[in-house]
Amino acid sequence: MSAGKLSEQARGVYIIAATPFTDEGALDLSSIDTLTDFYLGCGVHGFTLLGMMGEAHKLTPEESLTVVQRVVARAQDRQVIVGVSHAGLENVRRLAHEAMIAGAAGVMVAPPPGLKGDEGVYNYYAQLFKELGPDIPVVYQDYPQNTGVYLAPSVFERLVDDFRQLVMLKHEDCPGLAKLTRIREGEKKPGRRRVSILVGNGGLYLPQEMRRGADGAMTGFAWPEMLVQVCALFADGKAEDAEDLFDLYLPLLRHEAQPGFGLALRKDILRRRGIIASSFVRAPGPKLTRDDYNELDWLIARLERKLKDRGVMPAKVA
Amino acid sequence: MSAGKLSEQARGVYIIAATPFTDEGALDLSSIDTLTDFYLGCGVHGFTLLGMMGEAHKLTPEESLTVVQRVVARAQDRQVIVGVSHAGLENVRRLAHEAMIAGAAGVMVAPPPGLKGDEGVYNYYAQLFKELGPDIPVVYQDYPQNTGVYLAPSVFERLVDDFRQLVMLKHEDCPGLAKLTRIREGEKKPGRRRVSILVGNGGLYLPQEMRRGADGAMTGFAWPEMLVQVCALFADGKAEDAEDLFDLYLPLLRHEAQPGFGLALRKDILRRRGIIASSFVRAPGPKLTRDDYNELDWLIARLERKLKDRGVMPAKVA
Amino acid sequence: MSAGKLSEQARGVYIIAATPFTDEGALDLSSIDTLTDFYLGCGVHGFTLLGMMGEAHKLTPEESLTVVQRVVARAQDRQVIVGVSHAGLENVRRLAHEAMIAGAAGVMVAPPPGLKGDEGVYNYYAQLFKELGPDIPVVYQDYPQNTGVYLAPSVFERLVDDFRQLVMLKHEDCPGLAKLTRIREGEKKPGRRRVSILVGNGGLYLPQEMRRGADGAMTGFAWPEMLVQVCALFADGKAEDAEDLFDLYLPLLRHEAQPGFGLALRKDILRRRGIIASSFVRAPGPKLTRDDYNELDWLIARLERKLKDRGVMPAKVA
Amino acid sequence: MSAGKLSEQARGVYIIAATPFTDEGALDLSSIDTLTDFYLGCGVHGFTLLGMMGEAHKLTPEESLTVVQRVVARAQDRQVIVGVSHAGLENVRRLAHEAMIAGAAGVMVAPPPGLKGDEGVYNYYAQLFKELGPDIPVVYQDYPQNTGVYLAPSVFERLVDDFRQLVMLKHEDCPGLAKLTRIREGEKKPGRRRVSILVGNGGLYLPQEMRRGADGAMTGFAWPEMLVQVCALFADGKAEDAEDLFDLYLPLLRHEAQPGFGLALRKDILRRRGIIASSFVRAPGPKLTRDDYNELDWLIARLERKLKDRGVMPAKVA
Repeated sequence: MSAGKLSEQARGVYIIAATPFTDEGALDLSSIDTLTDFYLGCGVHGFTLLGMMGEAHKLTPEESLTVVQRVVARAQDRQVIVGVSHAGLENVRRLAHEAMIAGAAGVMVAPPPGLKGDEGVYNYYAQLFKELGPDIPVVYQDYPQNTGVYLAPSVFERLVDDFRQLVMLKHEDCPGLAKLTRIREGEKKPGRRRVSILVGNGGLYLPQEMRRGADGAMTGFAWPEMLVQVCALFADGKAEDAEDLFDLYLPLLRHEAQPGFGLALRKDILRRRGIIASSFVRAPGPKLTRDDYNELDWLIARLERKLKDRGVMPAKVA
Repeated sequence: MSAGKLSEQARGVYIIAATPFTDEGALDLSSIDTLTDFYLGCGVHGFTLLGMMGEAHKLTPEESLTVVQRVVARAQDRQVIVGVSHAGLENVRRLAHEAMIAGAAGVMVAPPPGLKGDEGVYNYYAQLFKELGPDIPVVYQDYPQNTGVYLAPSVFERLVDDFRQLVMLKHEDCPGLAKLTRIREGEKKPGRRRVSILVGNGGLYLPQEMRRGADGAMTGFAWPEMLVQVCALFADGKAEDAEDLFDLYLPLLRHEAQPGFGLALRKDILRRRGIIASSFVRAPGPKLTRDDYNELDWLIARLERKLKDRGVMPAKVA
Repeated sequence: MSAGKLSEQARGVYIIAATPFTDEGALDLSSIDTLTDFYLGCGVHGFTLLGMMGEAHKLTPEESLTVVQRVVARAQDRQVIVGVSHAGLENVRRLAHEAMIAGAAGVMVAPPPGLKGDEGVYNYYAQLFKELGPDIPVVYQDYPQNTGVYLAPSVFERLVDDFRQLVMLKHEDCPGLAKLTRIREGEKKPGRRRVSILVGNGGLYLPQEMRRGADGAMTGFAWPEMLVQVCALFADGKAEDAEDLFDLYLPLLRHEAQPGFGLALRKDILRRRGIIASSFVRAPGPKLTRDDYNELDWLIARLERKLKDRGVMPAKVA
Repeated sequence: MSAGKLSEQARGVYIIAATPFTDEGALDLSSIDTLTDFYLGCGVHGFTLLGMMGEAHKLTPEESLTVVQRVVARAQDRQVIVGVSHAGLENVRRLAHEAMIAGAAGVMVAPPPGLKGDEGVYNYYAQLFKELGPDIPVVYQDYPQNTGVYLAPSVFERLVDDFRQLVMLKHEDCPGLAKLTRIREGEKKPGRRRVSILVGNGGLYLPQEMRRGADGAMTGFAWPEMLVQVCALFADGKAEDAEDLFDLYLPLLRHEAQPGFGLALRKDILRRRGIIASSFVRAPGPKLTRDDYNELDWLIARLERKLKDRGVMPAKVA
């Protein structure tokens, strides 16, 4: 909780934390702890909880709060962002307050489905920012594949100009490279703030996005050590090395980025790595078959061979 | 709570109750009471709470429970159905249990978005029915315009054959007349149960649906007395009279059935009729303009004139 | 062809013409003639061909051209608008030229799916208007239920200000009453043109829309004489009479407005009225069942009884 | 035209051919020839024309036919599949006949949007197969991300059992690996035919799909020589080598697989490789910026360095 509030300076990897369950489907607090420790050991710069990949909608309200409190308590000095998107604005407000009281550094809000046009998007967030007040830092989650709501760069700029609490863009429109560039260009206008941009989409375009001005990643790839190192290499100006490292993991990253199915793969990799006890996914959700497991065996064996060849060491589990 | 469990015998009007707020947006318990009394005075056969038109997603979990308890306590011997749809199956289970403990006669469940094909729909409900057990009566809410999930008649029949707790179809696919006929035809198969079918879509096709075998309506039209009487006339074999009455209200019914916008109209009519104190709609939601009010004035004046001409008396407010 | 070019002055009923086929599915030229004559006899002010309800996408390119030429040749001095929407801009251009050469007064263009945000819509039409040049009058078809593309009033206004060839809005967003009012309000700005607005959605909100400033209807209801008279009564300031007449037909208008299914109903009514030879709908499309026919019998019998009671005469078939 | 009819035996790479335009947007016949020769030089086993990536919907009917005739005339003994999907069944029939007369080996058909449930899909294809007759081989294009229509494995099996002309599945549901496995398992049922399965999705999961029983790829990656060699290595049982080769190209393949944007990248790569004269994309379509070109420079430089390191030679341009 000494992590401070989320700001435009945020960079690096804010890992989207999986939510571990027992094989019977109960929340697994002990695995939350080992997972949190593992992420810390990987060097992540922050956490994002209750995002879509965290199975937030499958948790009860009490479980959601438990997850936030448990991770915050163990996250040392790292910031925790909490997803509070909801179809009702009053619920966004309530969830945001609960999250901040529980120690969150900021909240992440995606637009509800059904907003119409540029004005619809601007007005929703304007009303939200007024409701939340200036003291709760907000991340705009731009994920139109899921919400059906398009964010125009000019709308984002108006929101940045008008509301200081908007400090970060979670960028996962796709194709979205041009939008990222466009927003960074727009920030050169005198007087406009430069916000933090962390990228999602499973990290699939991370090197291209870093080159275009992203500050890091907000995704949940099961080898977070790679994400951390890629961001560090970019920060050191070693783009070529960063991309070499990224490419080693790309076959698995692409495999894990399959919509829907990918969450089950991610949890199973974390289980295999000894970080969580079970790869259980709550219903409705994908179930892995024997073929899926064999395929994963093969892909992981290939990755490990390549890492060994290059002398790259995966992160250790405590 | 002496209303008993929901069964295949259900018929008549299960009114989708609006959720009244104060002008400041707080839950208005007193208006819930007057609204409940009004619905009872109209002769409704049951209540449906926390449906999409009840702004369920804009209530906090505590508010939702309060609404259910308040209505159940005042609903005399009428059955209360509670909407418990949720993206996570575990949450459906939990909400269903809460509702039943609070005195619901049954629960209504729409499929979550993303179910794939006939098997996807069957499997979701099969798993749900197993989780809920045989003692919680369930209504299948078939509203693909909103969920994106199509219910094939053959899938519904398999579910009816396999799970006795499935007692009702909330029918609001559109165009959906053929599906209604098809399901009633299918029920002639020896050994298959005949379930209750109540229709939605704002009541827009109520006479046609009654003629094709519907047992009544589950919608929230702001003149519930018409819905009740139309169902009664059909039950008495007076189809022509039923349709004459329905047609008087059709201009307003059609006006109120406008997607999104209609909820604000409905609440404002209830306010004008003196049944709830405020027509406040929680954000994000439509706001009425001066033009909308004038238009409503005109339409209501026309309705009242026509009712007077025919000697029809609107329901009284206690 | 002496009808002149479409302009902002257009008003009244531009009937969306059904496309008649034989029972074997071939284009029925003779029924096109009788249908055209019938529409003329109803007093329509213009025709709209190759819209979505005209089954345009089920015609071959040659058949499409034949339909346009046939109607134009027989339409006397009435204007013919031709739908030329297409996923490729080059095809829109080509189809527009073909239509104008065949004698169309203007063309109607809906946005292709996938346009992003207000800029996406503006840019598409700006490019289109440049390609078409200033001499082809264009109708913007605003039908987001089908295209998925939202038209903001401010975008429409920019297009009106920048391109004189944009002379009409085909209004069928739903709910869309507020948008209509908003556009009429915006036109009070000095220097802005007032465009023609004709409304669709099967005519379901025609009286409300006329009161809010619509100039008429562009839809295909099977009793066009009602649409014509309602528009005429509104033009004469007899709103109350207009709405009385409209309400007589509303049960059937609402029935015909069912998505998908409605086209088959409309064609069957035209067949029953002796105007076209067959109600055949090309695949994939709805097929009417015995229940559908009986239902239609009942509804039409009710309408005819009510018309007779009020002394209203349906249009005669030549 | 000596290529014979498409059959269940088809395997290898059926390249989705780009459609080259001049810088002014006209069809570039000369580039069609050089592109066809290039694909042949890469060793492709067949061609797929007028698919979504071929900008089919931006061609006039005459241009479409020209493309087919031009490629067929130059494709030596390779089979040409032509996409004939259309919203109207009659147009599918007509386009299929035109394609076969022009020398196609078979046609590819995606379901039109709006089909409802398993029966809706079955019935559409059953009617289509009856219309086309047994002599036109058909590929089912399963691309629900675009069509919104889900294909259940059991529906595909019924179609395979009932209609011999269904010889291939173009597999690009995503996630779709389980479906592929499920279909191959189902084919073990005595009496069921084994159909050809070629995979799309830009080739993003090609190695996994080959391992699960795919027969090859139907996609348009700008280095087709890789696709050909990967398929050949799999055919030779050298899965590990295949995947090593695939991984070299994966960064670019993933980059090119970006929806919408990818087509412009693909055409620009083909232009850079000297195969087509211009990377022009018809409107509405993406335009590349300076940043996009620089990014592509970098990614291609990295690929070429890696290929050189491993001694892999790119295909030569004649």
